[in-house]
Amino acid sequence: MLNPSTPKPSNPGIDPVAGPAPQRKKRLLARLHDVRGNTEQLVATLGPEDQNLQSMPEASPAKWHRAHTTWFFETFVLQPFKAGYQAFNPAFAELFNSYYNAIGEQHARARRALISRPDVETVSEYRQSVGQALDELIKACPENVFDKLVPLIELGLNHEQQHQELMLTDLKHAFHFNPLAPAIGHAPPVPAQAACADPAWLEFDGGTVEIGAVGDRFCFDNELPRHRVYLNNRYQLANRPVTCGEFSNFIDAGGYADPLLWLADGWAWIQQNNAQAPLYWSSCAGDRRIYTLSGWREMDPSEPVCHLNFYEASAFAEWSGCRLPTEAEWEAAAVSQSCDGHFADQRRYHPQPIEAAGKQLPAGMFGDVWEWTSSPYAPYPGFQAAAGAIGEYNGKFMANQMVLRGGSCATPKGHVRATYRNFFYPVDRWQFSGLRLARDA
Amino acid sequence: MLNPSTPKPSNPGIDPVAGPAPQRKKRLLARLHDVRGNTEQLVATLGPEDQNLQSMPEASPAKWHRAHTTWFFETFVLQPFKAGYQAFNPAFAELFNSYYNAIGEQHARARRALISRPDVETVSEYRQSVGQALDELIKACPENVFDKLVPLIELGLNHEQQHQELMLTDLKHAFHFNPLAPAIGHAPPVPAQAACADPAWLEFDGGTVEIGAVGDRFCFDNELPRHRVYLNNRYQLANRPVTCGEFSNFIDAGGYADPLLWLADGWAWIQQNNAQAPLYWSSCAGDRRIYTLSGWREMDPSEPVCHLNFYEASAFAEWSGCRLPTEAEWEAAAVSQSCDGHFADQRRYHPQPIEAAGKQLPAGMFGDVWEWTSSPYAPYPGFQAAAGAIGEYNGKFMANQMVLRGGSCATPKGHVRATYRNFFYPVDRWQFSGLRLARDA
Amino acid sequence: MLNPSTPKPSNPGIDPVAGPAPQRKKRLLARLHDVRGNTEQLVATLGPEDQNLQSMPEASPAKWHRAHTTWFFETFVLQPFKAGYQAFNPAFAELFNSYYNAIGEQHARARRALISRPDVETVSEYRQSVGQALDELIKACPENVFDKLVPLIELGLNHEQQHQELMLTDLKHAFHFNPLAPAIGHAPPVPAQAACADPAWLEFDGGTVEIGAVGDRFCFDNELPRHRVYLNNRYQLANRPVTCGEFSNFIDAGGYADPLLWLADGWAWIQQNNAQAPLYWSSCAGDRRIYTLSGWREMDPSEPVCHLNFYEASAFAEWSGCRLPTEAEWEAAAVSQSCDGHFADQRRYHPQPIEAAGKQLPAGMFGDVWEWTSSPYAPYPGFQAAAGAIGEYNGKFMANQMVLRGGSCATPKGHVRATYRNFFYPVDRWQFSGLRLARDA
Amino acid sequence: MLNPSTPKPSNPGIDPVAGPAPQRKKRLLARLHDVRGNTEQLVATLGPEDQNLQSMPEASPAKWHRAHTTWFFETFVLQPFKAGYQAFNPAFAELFNSYYNAIGEQHARARRALISRPDVETVSEYRQSVGQALDELIKACPENVFDKLVPLIELGLNHEQQHQELMLTDLKHAFHFNPLAPAIGHAPPVPAQAACADPAWLEFDGGTVEIGAVGDRFCFDNELPRHRVYLNNRYQLANRPVTCGEFSNFIDAGGYADPLLWLADGWAWIQQNNAQAPLYWSSCAGDRRIYTLSGWREMDPSEPVCHLNFYEASAFAEWSGCRLPTEAEWEAAAVSQSCDGHFADQRRYHPQPIEAAGKQLPAGMFGDVWEWTSSPYAPYPGFQAAAGAIGEYNGKFMANQMVLRGGSCATPKGHVRATYRNFFYPVDRWQFSGLRLARDA
Repeated sequence: MLNPSTPKPSNPGIDPVAGPAPQRKKRLLARLHDVRGNTEQLVATLGPEDQNLQSMPEASPAKWHRAHTTWFFETFVLQPFKAGYQAFNPAFAELFNSYYNAIGEQHARARRALISRPDVETVSEYRQSVGQALDELIKACPENVFDKLVPLIELGLNHEQQHQELMLTDLKHAFHFNPLAPAIGHAPPVPAQAACADPAWLEFDGGTVEIGAVGDRFCFDNELPRHRVYLNNRYQLANRPVTCGEFSNFIDAGGYADPLLWLADGWAWIQQNNAQAPLYWSSCAGDRRIYTLSGWREMDPSEPVCHLNFYEASAFAEWSGCRLPTEAEWEAAAVSQSCDGHFADQRRYHPQPIEAAGKQLPAGMFGDVWEWTSSPYAPYPGFQAAAGAIGEYNGKFMANQMVLRGGSCATPKGHVRATYRNFFYPVDRWQFSGLRLARDA
Repeated sequence: MLNPSTPKPSNPGIDPVAGPAPQRKKRLLARLHDVRGNTEQLVATLGPEDQNLQSMPEASPAKWHRAHTTWFFETFVLQPFKAGYQAFNPAFAELFNSYYNAIGEQHARARRALISRPDVETVSEYRQSVGQALDELIKACPENVFDKLVPLIELGLNHEQQHQELMLTDLKHAFHFNPLAPAIGHAPPVPAQAACADPAWLEFDGGTVEIGAVGDRFCFDNELPRHRVYLNNRYQLANRPVTCGEFSNFIDAGGYADPLLWLADGWAWIQQNNAQAPLYWSSCAGDRRIYTLSGWREMDPSEPVCHLNFYEASAFAEWSGCRLPTEAEWEAAAVSQSCDGHFADQRRYHPQPIEAAGKQLPAGMFGDVWEWTSSPYAPYPGFQAAAGAIGEYNGKFMANQMVLRGGSCATPKGHVRATYRNFFYPVDRWQFSGLRLARDA
Repeated sequence: MLNPSTPKPSNPGIDPVAGPAPQRKKRLLARLHDVRGNTEQLVATLGPEDQNLQSMPEASPAKWHRAHTTWFFETFVLQPFKAGYQAFNPAFAELFNSYYNAIGEQHARARRALISRPDVETVSEYRQSVGQALDELIKACPENVFDKLVPLIELGLNHEQQHQELMLTDLKHAFHFNPLAPAIGHAPPVPAQAACADPAWLEFDGGTVEIGAVGDRFCFDNELPRHRVYLNNRYQLANRPVTCGEFSNFIDAGGYADPLLWLADGWAWIQQNNAQAPLYWSSCAGDRRIYTLSGWREMDPSEPVCHLNFYEASAFAEWSGCRLPTEAEWEAAAVSQSCDGHFADQRRYHPQPIEAAGKQLPAGMFGDVWEWTSSPYAPYPGFQAAAGAIGEYNGKFMANQMVLRGGSCATPKGHVRATYRNFFYPVDRWQFSGLRLARDA
Repeated sequence: MLNPSTPKPSNPGIDPVAGPAPQRKKRLLARLHDVRGNTEQLVATLGPEDQNLQSMPEASPAKWHRAHTTWFFETFVLQPFKAGYQAFNPAFAELFNSYYNAIGEQHARARRALISRPDVETVSEYRQSVGQALDELIKACPENVFDKLVPLIELGLNHEQQHQELMLTDLKHAFHFNPLAPAIGHAPPVPAQAACADPAWLEFDGGTVEIGAVGDRFCFDNELPRHRVYLNNRYQLANRPVTCGEFSNFIDAGGYADPLLWLADGWAWIQQNNAQAPLYWSSCAGDRRIYTLSGWREMDPSEPVCHLNFYEASAFAEWSGCRLPTEAEWEAAAVSQSCDGHFADQRRYHPQPIEAAGKQLPAGMFGDVWEWTSSPYAPYPGFQAAAGAIGEYNGKFMANQMVLRGGSCATPKGHVRATYRNFFYPVDRWQFSGLRLARDA
């Protein structure tokens, strides 16, 4: 029995209390430079045109991500706290505001790629300028101000990490339209010749569990408040995510042609899009190659399947005689584990086969692929959005989306934790999204 | 403290066990004739063209509703159980199948109004022919077959009642495009001159509650299984639904122009549709008239507001500093009440002011307006769809929709109960949908 | 050499000058009753639902056509000329105005099928009431008023004949979505077993020709003024329209799969619609049946092909190494012929094989199928639209459409003439539209 | 009387006959370097992101234009004529083919901006590589091959000039979405304070005129064959194009709100797009600023109005009691003039006030603004598209578009002539398109 237990913080974050101010400032500055440096690292091999790609309204250019995350610090930290701060460019207030209506108008999301100017060099200067101003502010501010800055900067850093992941998924989506098949990830190993062993089932107690963040470290507001959920049944989780080989069997068995396996909206999605395989799988008959951020490669039957939408994940579960876990079930099973796995720091940007045999706990809960849950994204009981514009961060999206858990191969290491709630529309599949089977015991 | 208690069955249904077979058959036949006769009653004042109206894909012609509900009995009762049964017209298998993929192909939903033939007379003959065959089958079948028929016929009758409500909402949607403003409902009383008193708050315990149907009477599969839910907080419900007068205040206060009140998808919906008031409210500035099934009339500030979508209900709750109840909270508060209220048998087809003052329990929980809850429509823990094509009835719609509770002025009397779950997309507002405010205690 | 010659009036029309007023009135009344009676004849076998069908915005319900043609007389004859005339129903001014902005607002074209009320009986009363008022006006008016009425009533009658054809084409479009395949035309003969003989070529002079109406009988304003056109080359026309057998060869030769045969916009239309055959041809591989207003029947290889759009007609001509005729070429070849052919009075509502062998003039120029020309619909030099709202009749449509000539099997006998210009968008194919090949001599 | 006369060649082109081969090669090489150098000159001040902008499917990135024009030479000159030529990159065959189905598949037009790679440097190398290969081929080929090369290279150069103009119009369309309002044109002079004088009317004979190219110099196939057109009436042309001041009067008089001025399709366009002024005019009430390629500036009432679509041009003409000229009328009036005017070599990229007073011929026929004619774009009598893939250049677009004449401020100097036919859809307005009034004498 795993529950209840306190979630293990995976994100080192910043302990807002401990230690004298100078050391805390030093730690915050180091983390600030580290996280923001990672953003720049991601675009190191990208040309200016690469950085300005936008393949659909939901995806944004890398240059925009770089500027928007900078705008976030400028708007929520520098403007209110740095005396006499002058905006780098007043036009950026509109250009790089994503969706904060409380701040002001926004440049149309679908037209972000039309912003050829500011160019990449100017955006680099913008990042440096804001970075320098943040440094100055942190170093110079009195301790009572610093205490106010810490949660905002920590939010800005976690926000920037989220955009680091989106930079990768958005770039992948744009690149895959190019017949030249650009590649930026590390070269993958040779695919396994044999499918991996069938998954084993691990069992968990039902009853009352507590989920949600404790609140002693950084978390997003949507992880709060910690609260009780009653699980009606003992349940089982597969000891690893579903693999490409298993999903391939689903396809070969006619899974995409059998309406009885699909949610009604999912079946309508198939009809409208003529979907026949996960995103990025070759559409040529008999060709089981997959486009990855390292280019096209043979599908590896032992690696976790990804780029599924919720409908595909649900249909696969139905076909398997199983179901998706609820987010509470998932969290209860994950909470006692450390957040290890394959993350973006490995620069593979693709899920890898997971060694699960013989383990007492489900493997691959963190990293590799986000796992769709059966839980609609809704406020926890007693949820309160933050005051002010920051309150638009999460709460207003709590409709029509589903919760995913665990992070992916494109998630920055250290960013996720057991209580972390990601959310996308059921139709979305450009994220590294897969699934883990569940069933009642 | 209201919980736990066993839900009160509001639907008399058929006791599948009690009594000798002849009496049970007699009771079933009486109910069959009653419910199916109500369908015909609804179209008694409609011309053939009225019966063939379709104003959007989501709404269907009354003639189609009449034929589809008949097809349901023919397909799920007569075909499998009546030896030698010949289909009234084999083409109807496709024409009047709504969405049962396990049965076969379906005529395109958006093109139901193109089925001028069969005409209304032929559909009447179809209904009579199937009705007669059902009578014969029920009267002649042995008891062991009768025991199998009862739940299917009961499902067919509840199904037909659902379509009776849709006939009204769909007709209203089509009629309101006609400048002649057709009217079929009973004439309304003179609107109240004064707004009603402010709502009072009634408080309920949190903790573990049981919700869902007990299963001893008819219920839909989506009400099962009965299960426990943990309510984290004591909570309060308003003693009556929100009124037109209150919603009018929200409009006057600029509610439709303030993005901070709205879910992101709701705000996008406003932008795309230039929404400024509930559906059927006059779009002329300064004109607070409402189109009803009795024609245009002055808005009555004391009557429950309806034809809101989920976004409008949520925004109003946000503006009020409250929230919507979860479906568990709603059910726990409703379960001990009898299912009284203003239903379709009154032929007003419009909500009426509700007398709530001084009552110990929330008034107007049943009838008048469906109440949006904050709960996404999802399977209960352990939910199992029925075997076969009937399994497509509810389960495959468990994504992207929200739960509404309590029935409306267009719901047949006796159809709903405390455990009854209705569901529509957040954007839908052609149903008689309103809201009741909730808040944490 | 056929040119120049004065066009032969095929439409008996009304000689506005000859004879004493009483006889002229008598003739006009007879014609009025005859034409308007034909409209009612067309709907004699249609039920109310049939009369209210609308399958696309471009097509209108038969009931609407009946009311709109009545509105035309009410608006342009009764309102201005009958002292004290009271509108049958003031709401009809908006409901049954098609596109006359000078008259006022119009009910949305795409929502004409939502007008279940007025019902068919009321529309019949409307027609009778306006008919009676017209009779009274004609009989009672002084001769100077009668002289003003004649051209307006004649316009109204020709207008009503145009809508008679549309009633048939619009009904066919709606009926073909119904798997019951309603039939209203006379039963067709058995298809010919053999294809007809190859077409012969008939040659015509180039040089200056005069086209357009002389103006001594009724014509539409778009046929005026008569003017000179210089034809640069001697040219040839096929002695009959293209047949289904010939078009079938085009399909079998891969005509719909070869982009080099198609105009760019036509190729885009194919891609978007997956077009593979003319409208109403069975989409099942190997099935060469055609839906007609007499139901489904075997394609007759010897009958003129119809329900082609301009792109299909052009591609067929390209594949044949020929071209479409210009409207001037067509008119110059047609002007000396009498307007005989298969028209709607035969109630076949489908083109019939045409006997062309041995004739000195092209056969089948009138009736059977409208023939696409290569001429965009543009004003003749010096064109002047009529003053007032009547001026909206033709002129404002002179962009983006192509001219068709000669009438079809759905055109009222006596309605067309050599100078008659019909026009549809290149993409349209729900009319009885075919083609005749042309080439330079 | 201006007609008939032989059109004056404005495009120096290459005399394919005169002179010995070495001199002809030298002249061709000089012209090749000159035209292709102008393309590179146009992007000299653009960053990589600027060069990759695409704001709508109809507009293409500058980088794509640079590569496509190079592909044109590679495909139609190098591949067939240069022995052993190896494609620079085989993937470019698909990436940079615009619409030549005879050559092969094409990358989707709407996704040209997704081609971040090849980057601008690689495209520059591509251009240099192909340029060098062309030089080698021209220098080395025998005279009989050179005679075959000349018309293809001349076509390629004229093709490249057309794309030079599109680079400017496409860039302007993309830039205007950027609130930073990028500017690349030379700074404009101060707007005139006073409106210019009313236009004078110049009169021309009717009767038979000859239009179309003589064919002794380069022309596009759509200018052939030269042929006779009969003009039915003497006609008048305004001595200059319509100005911004005049169009401003049309707006102030409610021109965009009066349906009686508009073609039906134009009125529908207004309703759908809420159009209230020409493209690039400020949408703020009372603000008469215009976005130009030199940034935002005050509207100059004396400069020719541009960025009108055909509907706007037609409505203005209707409001003025005039009409648009036919292309034959325009050409007959232009044919005796030299092709002087404000072209792209001035780098203003915006029309300038035209001095027309006292001239015997209409001023501003060439350069400044393309002038909409009333002529649909159709093949001339006897038109033959070129054999092979080149035949797709013009012929397949001869439907649904209208002819414009005379070139614009974005047209390369020397590119147009009196017989030159440009064509766009009636709805298009991102070209520098204006109008000149005409009327019957």
